[in-house]
Amino acid sequence: MTVGPYSTEYDGPDARLVAMGIELPAPPLPAANYIPYRRADRLMFISGQVPFLDGELMLTGRLGAEVTLDDGKRAARVCTLNALAVARSDRATLSGWAVAQLMVFVASTSTFYQQHLVANGASDLLVEVFGEDGRHPRTAIAVPCLPLNAPVEVQLTLVEL
Amino acid sequence: MTVGPYSTEYDGPDARLVAMGIELPAPPLPAANYIPYRRADRLMFISGQVPFLDGELMLTGRLGAEVTLDDGKRAARVCTLNALAVARSDRATLSGWAVAQLMVFVASTSTFYQQHLVANGASDLLVEVFGEDGRHPRTAIAVPCLPLNAPVEVQLTLVEL
Amino acid sequence: MTVGPYSTEYDGPDARLVAMGIELPAPPLPAANYIPYRRADRLMFISGQVPFLDGELMLTGRLGAEVTLDDGKRAARVCTLNALAVARSDRATLSGWAVAQLMVFVASTSTFYQQHLVANGASDLLVEVFGEDGRHPRTAIAVPCLPLNAPVEVQLTLVEL
Repeated sequence: MTVGPYSTEYDGPDARLVAMGIELPAPPLPAANYIPYRRADRLMFISGQVPFLDGELMLTGRLGAEVTLDDGKRAARVCTLNALAVARSDRATLSGWAVAQLMVFVASTSTFYQQHLVANGASDLLVEVFGEDGRHPRTAIAVPCLPLNAPVEVQLTLVEL
Repeated sequence: MTVGPYSTEYDGPDARLVAMGIELPAPPLPAANYIPYRRADRLMFISGQVPFLDGELMLTGRLGAEVTLDDGKRAARVCTLNALAVARSDRATLSGWAVAQLMVFVASTSTFYQQHLVANGASDLLVEVFGEDGRHPRTAIAVPCLPLNAPVEVQLTLVEL
Repeated sequence: MTVGPYSTEYDGPDARLVAMGIELPAPPLPAANYIPYRRADRLMFISGQVPFLDGELMLTGRLGAEVTLDDGKRAARVCTLNALAVARSDRATLSGWAVAQLMVFVASTSTFYQQHLVANGASDLLVEVFGEDGRHPRTAIAVPCLPLNAPVEVQLTLVEL
């Protein structure tokens, strides 16, 4: 790969998604009186996302019971792809945004203590897609369950560069 | 109703509250070393609100057990009225604000999966009061319980228009 | 104490920490693809902190079971010291910041209803350190457990004065 003085191996989140072979889904439509996102100053607040895949939850249940750690990570990744689909709908690109904050809610039994490892499914994707701008502060917690018995919910907040 | 070229049926959140017959309560006073809200740039962060009504929780318990879905929605609405009371205390009006983000925490058994329907009690009120500016991104999750055994807690963040 | 026209008994968060005999720890290093904080406009979002003390959790378990209220408060205080250590790492001072928002997550049995009292361990420290600028809106909720079986997790957001 030839890297000139102004080029870089990282060429932005849209190109990166293509290189990763990822086609973002249509942004999930809210089913009630809320909206997918709101911009406020340079921030973009995005609604919490569950792992809908082709209109259905890709899996249900709790970590520590029916859902394995690997499946939990995959679910966190799909939640995050849905959040990115929402973000891109604002101006048809993900370029120009960094990740301001990530919250990951993991449906867990009260003896499953690896919510941080589940959250890596979201964090790793964000860094793959956004590079350094994808690195983020993060809070991962357990919850007893989630809407529709989803295993993971991801709340993403972006900031304009 | 006569609607002229510059008029609209929606005439702002204060008038809308009057039309709805709602008198906001006095803003709940924090009982410890915290404050009801802080403005930061154009954002207003508001403390999490539980459904205090005339100084007492309107009901206690969990969804999926003692608390029905309809009562949970009503509790979410009362939490939100308390948050609006806090917001209005800043400059004696709700005019000039939009909703930036809503988080709804629902005390739930681990097999109650309708936190999103409980949250509609908050979301519907916000749209009734603020119109289009009340539409918001939202995150609804279950929690095993809440302070004082409240069934619902609502965290509202506003942004100046 | 002599108080001149431009002096005050409160002389800033760094001096206050010294007066309190507190030496902030080294900021906890993220163990995965996330970062301790990100600045976004005038806000600083800080990763959720658990009560690491000298590289280990100072205690584990849930409120209402193995962990007493007093120990829970102490844990909330240590979480908050870790968050302040992160904040200070940005420009080697805590001066110039106010607290925008505090979220406190308390690992609880489903019949422990004093999350707000646990959260006081965080809130009281913030006011001790920052004075009036440390007063904050706050949300305290229960969770079934937390990463590594931590009893408390604290998410702090600051705003530049």
